[in-house]
Amino acid sequence: MRARDLLTPFPTVTLDTTVGEAARLLAGQDLPGLIVVDAEGKPTTVLSGTAVLQLAVPFYCQDDPALARVVDEAHADAFLEPHADRPVRVALPRQPRELPVTDLDATLLELAALMARTKSPLVAVAGEDGVLVGAVTLQALMDRLVAS
Amino acid sequence: MRARDLLTPFPTVTLDTTVGEAARLLAGQDLPGLIVVDAEGKPTTVLSGTAVLQLAVPFYCQDDPALARVVDEAHADAFLEPHADRPVRVALPRQPRELPVTDLDATLLELAALMARTKSPLVAVAGEDGVLVGAVTLQALMDRLVAS
Repeated sequence: MRARDLLTPFPTVTLDTTVGEAARLLAGQDLPGLIVVDAEGKPTTVLSGTAVLQLAVPFYCQDDPALARVVDEAHADAFLEPHADRPVRVALPRQPRELPVTDLDATLLELAALMARTKSPLVAVAGEDGVLVGAVTLQALMDRLVAS
Repeated sequence: MRARDLLTPFPTVTLDTTVGEAARLLAGQDLPGLIVVDAEGKPTTVLSGTAVLQLAVPFYCQDDPALARVVDEAHADAFLEPHADRPVRVALPRQPRELPVTDLDATLLELAALMARTKSPLVAVAGEDGVLVGAVTLQALMDRLVAS
């Protein structure tokens, strides 16, 4: 079992995609995260679902639970609005150390270790030229793991 | 919009559940994670999907990508086996600082900030007695967020 056997086509975004579009894509297609690619189609960032959410949550609420609590319900419901038109580029957090990106030959154990290490429910798989060919999701990997 | 409006019943495990059972539950029901409860039904830990996977990945592979690569394909396919009968209690990593657990009155913004801060696609919701009443998933929250 190699990455090529677990591969699924996966929608991508770019750094110019807006936060609103990214949120709609994630929600509409029930995705575990999003893959950001450059102009050549090479994966540059993999965002987990919670990282996509993080793009839309005001910084002061991420750091301090008490501050989120004082926002009234009407404003709390609409927290995405002020950020929806910002490009992902602007909202992106500092880059993590290791990206969950691998090649077509990665084994089940390599994929699992990469997901565990990067805490990403999604691994981008690139060909020899570095261009994205698809993704392996945590769900696909777990299905295979418990079946074997 | 409050946690009570986004609540979904959620299966739970205990510290005595085996790693194999936890993996099968996650895979079989397509869950974003698992909630660990104590004998009184109070949530003590929330494990994201990648944290459940982490229970089964050998420590040496989590730290060093090169070590996962040298394991041959047959052994890599079956990496869960040696760990499947261990209880979750034994495999559990050091406890995180903040648990993604909240109450029924948490707003959409509080839920989102909590998910972003704890990087958990799943928030456990407890009643006033601390007993779990259900969960809010990232997917349910994103659906509501982009609809509003």
